[in-house]
Amino acid sequence: MSVFADRLRDAVARIGAPLCVGLDPFPDRLPALFGDGEDLSAWERFFTEILALAASRAAIVKPQLGLFEAFGAEGYALARALTASARAQGLLVLLDAKRGDIGSTAEGYAKAALGPAPGFDADCVTVNPYLGRDSLTPFLNLAAAHGKGVAILARTSNTGAADLQDAPSSNGPLWERTAAMIAAEAPRLAGHGGWSGTMAVVGATWPEEARRARTLMPKTLFLVPGYGAQGASGADAVAGFVPGPSGLEGGIVSSSRAVLYPKSADSAASLSAWREAVAGAMDAAHAELAAACHT
Amino acid sequence: MSVFADRLRDAVARIGAPLCVGLDPFPDRLPALFGDGEDLSAWERFFTEILALAASRAAIVKPQLGLFEAFGAEGYALARALTASARAQGLLVLLDAKRGDIGSTAEGYAKAALGPAPGFDADCVTVNPYLGRDSLTPFLNLAAAHGKGVAILARTSNTGAADLQDAPSSNGPLWERTAAMIAAEAPRLAGHGGWSGTMAVVGATWPEEARRARTLMPKTLFLVPGYGAQGASGADAVAGFVPGPSGLEGGIVSSSRAVLYPKSADSAASLSAWREAVAGAMDAAHAELAAACHT
Repeated sequence: MSVFADRLRDAVARIGAPLCVGLDPFPDRLPALFGDGEDLSAWERFFTEILALAASRAAIVKPQLGLFEAFGAEGYALARALTASARAQGLLVLLDAKRGDIGSTAEGYAKAALGPAPGFDADCVTVNPYLGRDSLTPFLNLAAAHGKGVAILARTSNTGAADLQDAPSSNGPLWERTAAMIAAEAPRLAGHGGWSGTMAVVGATWPEEARRARTLMPKTLFLVPGYGAQGASGADAVAGFVPGPSGLEGGIVSSSRAVLYPKSADSAASLSAWREAVAGAMDAAHAELAAACHT
Repeated sequence: MSVFADRLRDAVARIGAPLCVGLDPFPDRLPALFGDGEDLSAWERFFTEILALAASRAAIVKPQLGLFEAFGAEGYALARALTASARAQGLLVLLDAKRGDIGSTAEGYAKAALGPAPGFDADCVTVNPYLGRDSLTPFLNLAAAHGKGVAILARTSNTGAADLQDAPSSNGPLWERTAAMIAAEAPRLAGHGGWSGTMAVVGATWPEEARRARTLMPKTLFLVPGYGAQGASGADAVAGFVPGPSGLEGGIVSSSRAVLYPKSADSAASLSAWREAVAGAMDAAHAELAAACHT
């Protein structure tokens, strides 16, 4: 059985950049070409196109489940169908669900995200650590059994992250306690390449925290959101990466708005013009991240 | 427009106890009478019976969404259908989803849980505070607009709760910082009866924490899980309640396993025998909580 950390390393090497494309259906951003942003079938057409463009440009895609759930059970089902479609095209899928619970309920969420049908069968899922280490165990257990990954929130990129994550604790801010908990679970999902599929979510808008996070979690792959539209540069986004045999490595960097809804695509009059604009935006993100990793 | 805190107070007064019945489909616990626990239609029959029994015995029901999601999109849809059915029978519904995200994704989750169709249109939803105060705002905004509630995790009842929630911080453990954040949002969802629908989840297994939580959040209704099968007594469960005009008040106490799957119901040979056993278990929980509130 292949292990997620290795599959992700291979995908990044094959693509040439640690680019993760977020799949975020913002109702007011759908280009008119695809129809009405309140209509789920329009989003199905949109993301079918996005996946085809991402397959050769991104290592992994990240469906933002909350935005699909806003469409009800059918939105939930569409997120699952897109996960299957992405995987069939050779893309890895990190389901951004930010689940967190205990005992059998956590097992239920783990099964839903990482398990085979009727689960999403995603490669990795984001999880919230507030309930403590025993709340992570059911996700790690299922991930270990199926060669999957678990990405645990550590230091997020929003301003409110300061409220609890930066709370002063015994040896530094609270999020460093989370980081220690994540680092302790690295062996659970270790790949053969030295990295672990017990990932940490570390926001791109705080490069100093990312460097600190790396010292606390040396084997942990980072999921870095906040790149692109949220204001962080490519260099900021890979601040927590470390030198490897072929440039900086140690995680993936997610972009959503900037690659899904570039300004140039808004005004596209035809599907081919739209494709060209979105491919250009993905290529630009790819190039910036590749350059940041190979300086 | 009625306000959730007032609807909950009225429901508890009408029922005579702060009983919340958890709707937890544990695959290995379904009585054979209803069919196979891997079959969602068997669970639909089971919970249809449970809701009919709960309507006159519980103030509110709490679908445990993670256990429904383990059945995929159809499980998600069943949880929504049961929410509608419960509300049609006069029950309040607190959707136990433990969501947490930022910005438009948090808005998506809020819409999914509290919004009208295709949302669940639940009366209240559980939310995880790790991402900070700005992650709570979208839930509170939607709740305020629709007369709904938001129950925020403060101090949970699992052993792992100690890992982050008990981390020593500037003025006590980290969860007290969460409590301060929740207390600050009490005015947002205040009812006319003095209580707020900005609820806090405070585990029943820690009565001392519950009393401390009450001093920190004087106007906050508590959702108390961990009662019954998880080992807390009725008196423990209401440790954070305070004297009101008709006994102790200030929250609801949730029971799942003990009322859904009492031993006496496992061996029931007929539907009427099963109904009698489950009604008896609900009545026992109701009586214990009523007694604990009227000592």
